[in-house]
Amino acid sequence: MWTIENDSIESISIGAGILGSGGGGNPYMGMLRAKEMIRKYGPVNVLSVNELSISDKIVCVGSIGAPTVGIEKIQGIESYYALRAIEKLLNFSATAVVSNEIGGSNSLEPIIPASISKIPIVDADGMGRAFPELQMKTFFVYGVPPVPMSIADDKGNVMIISQANDPKTVEDMARSITVQMGGVACYAFGPMDINQILNTAVLNTLTLSKNLGDIVRSSIKTNNNPIESILKVHSGKNLFEGKIVDLERKTIQGFTRGKVLIEGLSEYSGDRMEIEFQNENLIAKMNNTVVCLVPDLICIVDSEKGEPITTELLRYGFRVTVLGFPAPKHWTSEQGLKVVGPKAFGYDFDYSPLLFKELK
Amino acid sequence: MWTIENDSIESISIGAGILGSGGGGNPYMGMLRAKEMIRKYGPVNVLSVNELSISDKIVCVGSIGAPTVGIEKIQGIESYYALRAIEKLLNFSATAVVSNEIGGSNSLEPIIPASISKIPIVDADGMGRAFPELQMKTFFVYGVPPVPMSIADDKGNVMIISQANDPKTVEDMARSITVQMGGVACYAFGPMDINQILNTAVLNTLTLSKNLGDIVRSSIKTNNNPIESILKVHSGKNLFEGKIVDLERKTIQGFTRGKVLIEGLSEYSGDRMEIEFQNENLIAKMNNTVVCLVPDLICIVDSEKGEPITTELLRYGFRVTVLGFPAPKHWTSEQGLKVVGPKAFGYDFDYSPLLFKELK
Repeated sequence: MWTIENDSIESISIGAGILGSGGGGNPYMGMLRAKEMIRKYGPVNVLSVNELSISDKIVCVGSIGAPTVGIEKIQGIESYYALRAIEKLLNFSATAVVSNEIGGSNSLEPIIPASISKIPIVDADGMGRAFPELQMKTFFVYGVPPVPMSIADDKGNVMIISQANDPKTVEDMARSITVQMGGVACYAFGPMDINQILNTAVLNTLTLSKNLGDIVRSSIKTNNNPIESILKVHSGKNLFEGKIVDLERKTIQGFTRGKVLIEGLSEYSGDRMEIEFQNENLIAKMNNTVVCLVPDLICIVDSEKGEPITTELLRYGFRVTVLGFPAPKHWTSEQGLKVVGPKAFGYDFDYSPLLFKELK
Repeated sequence: MWTIENDSIESISIGAGILGSGGGGNPYMGMLRAKEMIRKYGPVNVLSVNELSISDKIVCVGSIGAPTVGIEKIQGIESYYALRAIEKLLNFSATAVVSNEIGGSNSLEPIIPASISKIPIVDADGMGRAFPELQMKTFFVYGVPPVPMSIADDKGNVMIISQANDPKTVEDMARSITVQMGGVACYAFGPMDINQILNTAVLNTLTLSKNLGDIVRSSIKTNNNPIESILKVHSGKNLFEGKIVDLERKTIQGFTRGKVLIEGLSEYSGDRMEIEFQNENLIAKMNNTVVCLVPDLICIVDSEKGEPITTELLRYGFRVTVLGFPAPKHWTSEQGLKVVGPKAFGYDFDYSPLLFKELK
């Protein structure tokens, strides 16, 4: 068990920003909201899965919407409303919450209901990164039912998806409700028990994001190379370094979609990398050759500071480093790839773990 | 008590088509579905409100969506799914159902859950006509809570609006879900008790629509003037007679919107009537002067046969008669006009019961 306080919120927001692969919601906004909650309701405990008991009832909470809207629309305690709606509907009390995705501000979302309800957060999540759509959760791929799911807005309006033919239908209905609710909302589903968490969740990711954030922050203070430090904490590859020279970004049907072009610097001088995103970075091509693709993680960080740059914050002229990390094993199975492999995002080729090839 | 069988379904579909003021869903499609249900599950009883007991639990069901989609998308037993979802959510068994609106196919919608569940239909509805939006129900205007409301599609997907700040928010959320569900869906809310029905519903409207249909059908058989017959059963005015010479109609955001221009014939020769609609006919102008406006009923019928022509069935060249009927008293009160008066539909003038002025 460890405790989330102001300092750990700062670290988690950096680490989760990296693991978010460009998405998962703006970590800075998530950080401000989480800090306010902790100040108001006190710190929140994090339990590893082996600290759970068989009687625990764990509710998964998350935020849904376009990150571009997320940075403009002030969010409230909608994830708490969503938790309460599920508890009321199924007549139980949650003993813990868990994040739906560790990437971006969604990693911090459980702090809101946890601090208000005074219950712990489980050190796990349903993605091990961030993904744009609701059906893209290890929970659902490995058998947790997506319904009933509650969806709440900041005004306290609540909808419940009580029956749906498949998780993708849940996504379609939730997305349309979210647009109606102003572009951002929060949802909750469950409860799950310890076995469901063990069998479906990506474990220890809150600790991983905190460790990543800790090392980035200490590198900046100690003048160490933050990129090298990141790769020491979480094994992956330095894919590219350069300057953003072009950017297309639109908010379409509740998503942030687009691509960014990076012109190489230092050892990559003369090379170009293009990264396409739908909330998250999906595919990275160097000189028109795919070098990393979904579900593997493509993370754009500030070259100097190692801080993550999410898709809605990309700007012309930024000096960035592109990091690649292998996807959690949950996603590279046949079932996993069906939901989040390249084809699920409209690319007409199969996944292969390109990260482990020699790139240059 | 009386019983709905094949013959009464034909009459109700005609009478409800007239009371629908152009909307409420295509009565022909509703008739086919209702007949199939009766054939499969047996006839359904209609109870007048004084045949209800204090222990009755009455659920209101209805269909939501654009009529233009309603005639293309085959509907199933979604109103039964919606009823079951509310029963399951609140853990009770409905003892009767009631229609949300008597206009159009919505008058027949309760036959589906009633026949499957073998419960009666209450002789009443929540509009006394048809209206395009969910908040426009006498139930809600006079205090029945609009939530929880279930919304189901023909595939068995179910959503529940469990908390909403006001009935208009329920409408916004339900509409957006309906578009997501393919443009047409069914909903249910309640249960209401006998007092809620007495205090909020428009009573005896199923009988009224059956009587209207009976007289139209017998007029055709006996070669009597169907227009005069209609006005004998339900007091109103013959506003205009002519030929449709222009028509604008679009399906926008789940609604059928537009206007129709009618050139006068016989005693109206040389005159023109323009009628604007949003699913239902809202305002009728003769030679640019308003002669009838919402919430009063503007009903377009076939001049020869007296059969109703709903907005999605209007065609160039049709010979039509325009009838006006005064709105139920529920709508001409201050609370009623706030929800369905001319201003609620974007017209910048107050309601006045123009029908009772001399027109020509």
